[in-house]
Amino acid sequence: MTPRAVALLSGGIDSAVAAAIVRDEGFDVFPLSVRYGQRHAIELESARRVAAALGIREPRVVDVDLRAIGGSALTADLDVPKGRDLRGGIPVTYVPARNTVLLALALGYAETLDAADLVIGANAVDYSGYPDCRRPFLEAFERLAALATRAGVEGAARFRVRAPLLALSKAEIVKAGIARRVPLELTVSCYDPTPDGLACRECDSCRIRARAFAEAGVADPTRYRLRR
Amino acid sequence: MTPRAVALLSGGIDSAVAAAIVRDEGFDVFPLSVRYGQRHAIELESARRVAAALGIREPRVVDVDLRAIGGSALTADLDVPKGRDLRGGIPVTYVPARNTVLLALALGYAETLDAADLVIGANAVDYSGYPDCRRPFLEAFERLAALATRAGVEGAARFRVRAPLLALSKAEIVKAGIARRVPLELTVSCYDPTPDGLACRECDSCRIRARAFAEAGVADPTRYRLRR
Repeated sequence: MTPRAVALLSGGIDSAVAAAIVRDEGFDVFPLSVRYGQRHAIELESARRVAAALGIREPRVVDVDLRAIGGSALTADLDVPKGRDLRGGIPVTYVPARNTVLLALALGYAETLDAADLVIGANAVDYSGYPDCRRPFLEAFERLAALATRAGVEGAARFRVRAPLLALSKAEIVKAGIARRVPLELTVSCYDPTPDGLACRECDSCRIRARAFAEAGVADPTRYRLRR
Repeated sequence: MTPRAVALLSGGIDSAVAAAIVRDEGFDVFPLSVRYGQRHAIELESARRVAAALGIREPRVVDVDLRAIGGSALTADLDVPKGRDLRGGIPVTYVPARNTVLLALALGYAETLDAADLVIGANAVDYSGYPDCRRPFLEAFERLAALATRAGVEGAARFRVRAPLLALSKAEIVKAGIARRVPLELTVSCYDPTPDGLACRECDSCRIRARAFAEAGVADPTRYRLRR
C-alpha cells in the first residue's frame, strides 16, 4: 500500500507547499482542514481548491469551536494588529494551544486511516513568535503520539510529524512552491480579508507574504483590496 | 489568587469525582465539557447539573465534531457492543486520539485563564484497554504542554496533568465520590442511553458502573430502562 499521510491544510501558502512536498515524496496525502472559528471561512474554500489543484484527495473538514475558549485575535473579539514590528515576541494572533489541537485531530484521523505521518506547515523562521512552531514542540508531539494511540501502543504505527518547511525562510517556501507548481494564487494568508477574500495588505501575515514574494523575486499573485 | 484548574467534565462518574477532589484541594475549578459528536448529548446536561451541585463554575462547552474523523462506536455508525468480555483489549468504543484532543482543548482554555492544572478523570484500572488513560501518556502530555504554549515557554506556568483517579478501582472511585457528596445520581455512564437518559444496563460502561456500586456496597442510583 502506498504510505498515507495526513496533511493539515489551512488554505495558506505554507500548508499547501508542505502537502506538495510530501505528495512528491510518494505519500498518498489525506488533507485535513480544521475550521476553528477563524473569522475568515474563505480559508476553507482555498484549501479545497488547493487540494484539487495539487491532485490530492479532498480535504476532510473538522469543526472545533475555539471561540468558546477565546484568547486570540483570530478567534475572539480582539483587533488584528496592523503595522507592528514583526520581531516583537508572541503576537495576539497566537491561538492558545492551536497546533496541539490541530495535531491531535490529525493524529485521530491518521489512526483511522492507518497513516503514520502527520504533515504540518510549521515554520520557525518567520513565525518564531509561536512556541508551537518549533522543533522541540513537534518532537514532543511525536513522543506523545506513540503513547496516545492504539496503533502506537500496539506497535502498528510509528508516528512521525513532518514539518518540511521548518527551517526555510518564507522566500524559500515561495520558491519551493513555484518549483512544485503549487497554485499560490489560490492561497489566502491575510488575517483580516474582505468577504471576497481580498487581502488587507497590512496585517503581519500579509506583510510577511508580500516580503517573501519580493525576496523570492517573483510576481505577487495576491488579490489585495484597494488602498484606503 | 486562588490557583485555577481546568477540569474536563463529561457527565460521568469519573470526571465528577476528579473535579470534586481538586475542588477540595483548594483549586478554583473551571469545568470544560467537550461535545465531540457523542451519540448521547444527555451527558452535557449531566455535566451542567453536576457542576452546579459541586458548587464549581458553569462548564464551558466546546464543540469538536470527531464524527468527521470516525473510527469509533461512540462517534461513527458502529454498534456499541453488549455483553463482551471486559478484559479483552482495546474496545471499539475507543475514540481515536480522544484524550489528546480533550487535553489539548483543556490546555488552550487553561492558557487563557492563567491556569496551570489540567484535571482528567482517567483511570487505568477498569479502562486499561485505552492507551490514553495511562500514566506515560499523561506525563508525555505534560512535557508537550511546557513546549506548546506561550505560558509554558515564557515560564509563567508549569502545566500539570492531574489524574487523581488513575490508580483507583471503580469501587474506590464510587466511595471517594460518596465521601465528597458528589451527586452520583446525576451522572450518566451508559454508552447507549435512551433519549431520557435511561441506561441500557448491558454496555461495557453500564456493567463496569453497576459492578462498582456492588463492590462499594452502596445502592446503585442509576436509572435503568426496563429489561427487554
